[in-house]
Amino acid sequence: MKRYMKAIRQVVPYVPGDQPDFPDMIKLNTNENPYPPAPAVQETLRQTRAELLRLYPDPTAHQLNAAIAKAYHVDESQVFTGVGSDDVLAMIFLTFFNSDLPVFFPDITYAFYPVWCDLFRIPYEIKPLAEDFSIVPEDYLAENGGIVFPNPNAPTGIAMPLSEIEDILRHNPESLVVVDEAYVDFGGESALPLLNEYENLMVVQTFSKSRSMAGARIAFAIGSPALIHALHDVKYSFNSYTINRASLAAGAASVADDAYLKETTAKVIATRERTKKELAEMGFCFPDSMSNFLFVTHSECDAKALFEALREAHIFVRWFDAPRIRNYLRITIGTDEQMDALFAFLKNYLKYA
Amino acid sequence: MKRYMKAIRQVVPYVPGDQPDFPDMIKLNTNENPYPPAPAVQETLRQTRAELLRLYPDPTAHQLNAAIAKAYHVDESQVFTGVGSDDVLAMIFLTFFNSDLPVFFPDITYAFYPVWCDLFRIPYEIKPLAEDFSIVPEDYLAENGGIVFPNPNAPTGIAMPLSEIEDILRHNPESLVVVDEAYVDFGGESALPLLNEYENLMVVQTFSKSRSMAGARIAFAIGSPALIHALHDVKYSFNSYTINRASLAAGAASVADDAYLKETTAKVIATRERTKKELAEMGFCFPDSMSNFLFVTHSECDAKALFEALREAHIFVRWFDAPRIRNYLRITIGTDEQMDALFAFLKNYLKYA
Repeated sequence: MKRYMKAIRQVVPYVPGDQPDFPDMIKLNTNENPYPPAPAVQETLRQTRAELLRLYPDPTAHQLNAAIAKAYHVDESQVFTGVGSDDVLAMIFLTFFNSDLPVFFPDITYAFYPVWCDLFRIPYEIKPLAEDFSIVPEDYLAENGGIVFPNPNAPTGIAMPLSEIEDILRHNPESLVVVDEAYVDFGGESALPLLNEYENLMVVQTFSKSRSMAGARIAFAIGSPALIHALHDVKYSFNSYTINRASLAAGAASVADDAYLKETTAKVIATRERTKKELAEMGFCFPDSMSNFLFVTHSECDAKALFEALREAHIFVRWFDAPRIRNYLRITIGTDEQMDALFAFLKNYLKYA
Repeated sequence: MKRYMKAIRQVVPYVPGDQPDFPDMIKLNTNENPYPPAPAVQETLRQTRAELLRLYPDPTAHQLNAAIAKAYHVDESQVFTGVGSDDVLAMIFLTFFNSDLPVFFPDITYAFYPVWCDLFRIPYEIKPLAEDFSIVPEDYLAENGGIVFPNPNAPTGIAMPLSEIEDILRHNPESLVVVDEAYVDFGGESALPLLNEYENLMVVQTFSKSRSMAGARIAFAIGSPALIHALHDVKYSFNSYTINRASLAAGAASVADDAYLKETTAKVIATRERTKKELAEMGFCFPDSMSNFLFVTHSECDAKALFEALREAHIFVRWFDAPRIRNYLRITIGTDEQMDALFAFLKNYLKYA
């Protein structure tokens, strides 16, 4: 074998989440929003002038950052945007998790946290969730090189009360605490109001879930101007032009329409609460999700077998081949009609389980 | 100072290339194409359905990769796409430049090569260009951990003959040789035909220059299926969804229109050749560029002073504060009208220089 083949970086093989594409499918596997983006997004796309694509996008993303700053009542100097949460979070890991102390995060959480640590050679310590899958705040009080967790957590959907987040912040004045709020608009409580008091806080949100724009690849971080400045320094130092022109404009249009965000997330929340009732009646157990998915298990059926049976019926959900959660399925909240089709399938399936 | 502030990753401060925005400006500073993208790109954008943005883009970029494969007569398994050359090249550095041997690249070249090496802790050795700014192939024959250079080189515009590239490939069977062909469509000779014979070759191209799509952020690498597979493994392992939906579709539309590419690059080339004549007559010296820019110097005027005078007149070009090239300006080839305005300014300026 040639030397250059031997030198190839070894990674844990990862198969991207199934993105099936059948006309009749019910796609509840990647936490996408069943409703379209805000109407202004369609209008913005219609008005995109292809001739402007010849020019680089604004590397400072001023239009988008200013719109986000306005919507979230912060200064533009407190906003950093990137190509989806994966880009924003990776940049945060690279910029701030840069000491010899271990970074802390939960065992059952977003799968890319340990991956970025390995990639950037960041030491880390995994803190197991409690028996009921909640994050144990006391685990995050020891000396550390940074803390990161989603709130609500994924794939459990459990939201941490703001008082517990404040507790973690107060006991970690020397550490950066990153709260990954990808799902917060579906009923969680954002940590943004704590920014005034805690300079060691950074909040990350995405346009992929509540704003129905996974296909546009936009996410943002909000923190103190000093922290955001450091993020920009690192980003500019090796990749200046990241978000494309169409997404910059579409993102700004989306964030300006708060009423639409509230309306569609309320619909998803209503469907989620109805889904909780239906599934509970069928004997499913699940943590009380504040996100746009439920993390369910059933004492009388094997999660993997059910996952495969659903797939056969072109109903796609997510199953994780990981310790502690092998008998759980993560089910995204779709439209009422989609959930009704799921309930019908499950009722029938459980009859023969 | 808090511990988390002390731990912030220190980078070489970088200010993104000036992206001025004046209605009357002549923007010749970032090597953008003066002509719009292929007509089908506008049509594709017009047809973009915002409601589909709620879904993640295809992580395998199948539609775009298949279109590129068809246009360049390779198999889809030989194509890797990313969010601009910076993304594709960074991924290549991360995946393949992973031994203890130094990576080789020229001293005057794309500024991000040493940045990515530092970022990923890759050892490197810089090989000075010859007096005439050409790459010296013999410098690349010692044992190394990989080789990367643009062809044509930037900011010099000098193209390396294919025979010299083949020489480097032949003498480096154990090393990956990456040819960064961002500007190749403007008169260079692509190394793609060498792929059949040299499995250690990887070619990178971008949609930002000849395809007038800098604003869409698309670039690609072509190599052996084994190398491309390794790139995908590393990409998927930490960031699955990179190119947004609109760019995937617009990119596929662009690459299908080879006639338009040939037509617009021919126009840029004709303007470049005319610019060479005009500037030579004014006493400017420059390497014989095969790209969409000229790298010029004038014995009777200071480059930085000229750069600033041009900026005052809203004509933007690029000046590099770097050894060997401090008295040079990089001037992008614009439309004939834009270049005429530049010539008029320069003639007047030189009168008083």
